[in-house]
Amino acid sequence: MSEHATLPTGERRGHSRTEDPQRWKSALTSIANNKILVRGYPLDEMMGRLSFADAVYLLLMGELPTPTIGRMLNAVLVASIDHGVTPPSTLAARNVATTGSPLKDCVAAGLLAFGPEHGGDVEACMRFLDQGLTLVRSGRSMREAAVELVDDALKSGHTPPGFGHRFHTRDPRATRLFQMALELELEDEHVRMIRALEQALRPHEEALGKALAANVDGAIAAVCADMGFAYELGNAVYLVSRLPGLIAHAHEERSRQRPMRQIDPKDSDYDGPRERRLPEGRK
Amino acid sequence: MSEHATLPTGERRGHSRTEDPQRWKSALTSIANNKILVRGYPLDEMMGRLSFADAVYLLLMGELPTPTIGRMLNAVLVASIDHGVTPPSTLAARNVATTGSPLKDCVAAGLLAFGPEHGGDVEACMRFLDQGLTLVRSGRSMREAAVELVDDALKSGHTPPGFGHRFHTRDPRATRLFQMALELELEDEHVRMIRALEQALRPHEEALGKALAANVDGAIAAVCADMGFAYELGNAVYLVSRLPGLIAHAHEERSRQRPMRQIDPKDSDYDGPRERRLPEGRK
Amino acid sequence: MSEHATLPTGERRGHSRTEDPQRWKSALTSIANNKILVRGYPLDEMMGRLSFADAVYLLLMGELPTPTIGRMLNAVLVASIDHGVTPPSTLAARNVATTGSPLKDCVAAGLLAFGPEHGGDVEACMRFLDQGLTLVRSGRSMREAAVELVDDALKSGHTPPGFGHRFHTRDPRATRLFQMALELELEDEHVRMIRALEQALRPHEEALGKALAANVDGAIAAVCADMGFAYELGNAVYLVSRLPGLIAHAHEERSRQRPMRQIDPKDSDYDGPRERRLPEGRK
Amino acid sequence: MSEHATLPTGERRGHSRTEDPQRWKSALTSIANNKILVRGYPLDEMMGRLSFADAVYLLLMGELPTPTIGRMLNAVLVASIDHGVTPPSTLAARNVATTGSPLKDCVAAGLLAFGPEHGGDVEACMRFLDQGLTLVRSGRSMREAAVELVDDALKSGHTPPGFGHRFHTRDPRATRLFQMALELELEDEHVRMIRALEQALRPHEEALGKALAANVDGAIAAVCADMGFAYELGNAVYLVSRLPGLIAHAHEERSRQRPMRQIDPKDSDYDGPRERRLPEGRK
Repeated sequence: MSEHATLPTGERRGHSRTEDPQRWKSALTSIANNKILVRGYPLDEMMGRLSFADAVYLLLMGELPTPTIGRMLNAVLVASIDHGVTPPSTLAARNVATTGSPLKDCVAAGLLAFGPEHGGDVEACMRFLDQGLTLVRSGRSMREAAVELVDDALKSGHTPPGFGHRFHTRDPRATRLFQMALELELEDEHVRMIRALEQALRPHEEALGKALAANVDGAIAAVCADMGFAYELGNAVYLVSRLPGLIAHAHEERSRQRPMRQIDPKDSDYDGPRERRLPEGRK
Repeated sequence: MSEHATLPTGERRGHSRTEDPQRWKSALTSIANNKILVRGYPLDEMMGRLSFADAVYLLLMGELPTPTIGRMLNAVLVASIDHGVTPPSTLAARNVATTGSPLKDCVAAGLLAFGPEHGGDVEACMRFLDQGLTLVRSGRSMREAAVELVDDALKSGHTPPGFGHRFHTRDPRATRLFQMALELELEDEHVRMIRALEQALRPHEEALGKALAANVDGAIAAVCADMGFAYELGNAVYLVSRLPGLIAHAHEERSRQRPMRQIDPKDSDYDGPRERRLPEGRK
Repeated sequence: MSEHATLPTGERRGHSRTEDPQRWKSALTSIANNKILVRGYPLDEMMGRLSFADAVYLLLMGELPTPTIGRMLNAVLVASIDHGVTPPSTLAARNVATTGSPLKDCVAAGLLAFGPEHGGDVEACMRFLDQGLTLVRSGRSMREAAVELVDDALKSGHTPPGFGHRFHTRDPRATRLFQMALELELEDEHVRMIRALEQALRPHEEALGKALAANVDGAIAAVCADMGFAYELGNAVYLVSRLPGLIAHAHEERSRQRPMRQIDPKDSDYDGPRERRLPEGRK
Repeated sequence: MSEHATLPTGERRGHSRTEDPQRWKSALTSIANNKILVRGYPLDEMMGRLSFADAVYLLLMGELPTPTIGRMLNAVLVASIDHGVTPPSTLAARNVATTGSPLKDCVAAGLLAFGPEHGGDVEACMRFLDQGLTLVRSGRSMREAAVELVDDALKSGHTPPGFGHRFHTRDPRATRLFQMALELELEDEHVRMIRALEQALRPHEEALGKALAANVDGAIAAVCADMGFAYELGNAVYLVSRLPGLIAHAHEERSRQRPMRQIDPKDSDYDGPRERRLPEGRK
């Protein structure tokens, strides 16, 4: 089979699981001539039968999701698909786009802007919720644990990660994710903990002068933690969700604007379609 | 409304379309307090009602897809979700992961590897198919146009973009996409042109010593062109599809391997699940 | 020598040049235990004896520069070290910095913004100058070749690459590079060609309503071409030159500004030292 | 002055320092028509008079270095200019280069690989040295502080950052930097602390089975800390130093290798010039 000379040995052997300890292992995808198995499932069988959200879950977690988990992850992916022209990630992508660079360069720069202060709250909030659940396992009630966590955070001068938003007093994406978790009977301890934290934060909102309802990062964190995602995969889901937004902005920048302009986020207006409703068949 | 002082003017006005010619415009997403409209549709209504593929189409193309186009784009997104350890994009991501860098850095480096020789075939093939269709509009039959294009490409020493694969003699993802296009009645002129090109290439395979069936890039190109995507958005769809694969490899590298190892793509074995079938309910 | 088990074979052999055709080759740097040779020279001997510009030339070109070429390349590296807050590369870096991302992420995003419209003029201008020199080799005088090139460019509606600047009517960095090329007796055919092109452009400035003197990209292109750099290395020199500027802006953003601010390039003032002169000893 | 309509107000005013508190400030570089001032110095005057190392120091630190500090920083920049084909940063850059991507994409991916485990030791070692100096200020001798730090690090199972190297038992670049610090009379408390730490580590080398002399990261950390660099700027100096190496590897990959090859770091040989000495005039 000289035509496959560059295939790794294990792949040449037709997906056999080899045990040579000198060789490094990957459990994701095996490749043989005309056969691609993702976590053991033929990729061409997955096409048309699994949603992209199902396939993402399979690849990241190793097994197929239940149908309700697949629907939940789909909603999580839709939730952060775009947020207009002002996020730093969008501006990084547009600043690369204005120089005539390839689309992939624009979105790579955009992804690099998902730092601790921007999207990174998903991971931070997952850890924060687990701190609360550790208190619960030590004997506190949900409510007591939430009050304790909130008091500690505020005493040290920090807004807890996953709460409050620079534009939204009540983030509609968080509301919808919590509603879906309830309807799909996927509400578990992390969602209950974040709801308890929202309650514990409410009395402080007036003194702090800002709304502190859970934002989309917090909601994604709670939902992904309840679905069993590792911390860094919570952030990763956010990256998958937003990539189409970065692409759309980079493409619009190149299509509608002249090159090498100075991009001022405060200087922009929306000129797309007015508010409209989904057609009935979609509900 | 002092709390929204940082909102662009148009957004403060509650999604009104303003016409100040000094300000730059975006038609993608409008943001107001507690309201996010993607191409006019409330994002929270989209969650749970649209598939991620539907939402990607809406954001990139401006309107909701028909249900069959939504299913087709979903299959396209699943098609390239991963291809094992050997692609340069995967190796770039793993080489960044082995240094302890954040996950977003790994995947940004991975995306940068989707150069003209890797993924870039989607755009190149879309242009190639349009060359063929231009010949058709000038009076040639599909078959004549395909033979002419193939002869020109081979004479100049190039394999046409979107055909042949370093591992697969008959790419199962391309086969499946063409089958779905047929079943969903979405087969249009670009798919017919790529099938004609496959026929025109067949007589040359023996002399060239390699199989030249359409590969997944070619199939995505034909299907996306038939769905009306701009050239650079064909490549973009490929980026969205593969991002979960890059994430999975970066995460696996950090979870299973020691830092700062020398990553040799030829030295790897697959040790995941053996081949298995999708459960009946998924078919 | 089991402790070097991970060293490539050639390196284990103590810098011997091996000829195994199955193995791939690199002619840049050889590594053995406690010995690093860059193009054959011990790196520790280079330290303190070569300027960074000398070392860059050695690494990229394979041999040590003459002292005057070393001084010229040093001036080229200084020329583009920074250009304030408005370039898209700087804004991309600052938009990543405002998210709390690592410094390397900020500068990677900044480098991605050196697209065809921003820095890419170095390579484009090198090619343009070579077009002119091809005309000269076909019998035209420098002046005739320059007029012909300029006429062709303007007829097709393009400003030639390397001329004109959005801020400077007479770019002081270009002036200085040409002066140094003259003083160091390094002025060769590419510099003479760009000066001829400046002359040929002058009569068109009034009609075009803008100054079209050579800018810093053009001057770097001419000087690097005369020093023998490959096209893509001309752009590369620009990347090396500007990296400290990207670092300085990312560091300043993190040090002086709050996270997640909206960065508006038109909203900025300089508050550093007033104009001052280099101390006499530096001249 | 309508032709400068896009200049920030402060720049239009000819470098005047404005005090509008609504506008954000930068103290790096001011731009006016035909005048560029870096930290107050005309950039065209700097060209030919300052070394690139001097200019880097000026831009990052705000003032000109003394001549000896300029020479030291120049040696630091040369020290890490390249380290052959095996570093993950080099492999990331080469994996992007093999896909036909622009040079800037290759080096951006390479820079992203300077994670905590690779180059990040500069910053970690700077912090480690400062821990030691804090002990000294609390009354310990250098030697006592070093022994205490080393014992703590080894007890928790970590090799201290900046010591030991996967290839070198005695890193020649570190040796040379310490020698230069001595000769230039720049040896200050951070260099003395790292030498004390080397002494404190020596008795443990046999038990640990590896050499633990200071490596180039440690030496750069000590020297940069003595020159007054902020922690993150220590890492930044490393990025500037290595960028030419990333460029050289990406350029060599594109020039000498076929596209889309599988890059195996263990499969490579050096085929450049044999060891040679710098010409006498350079010493």
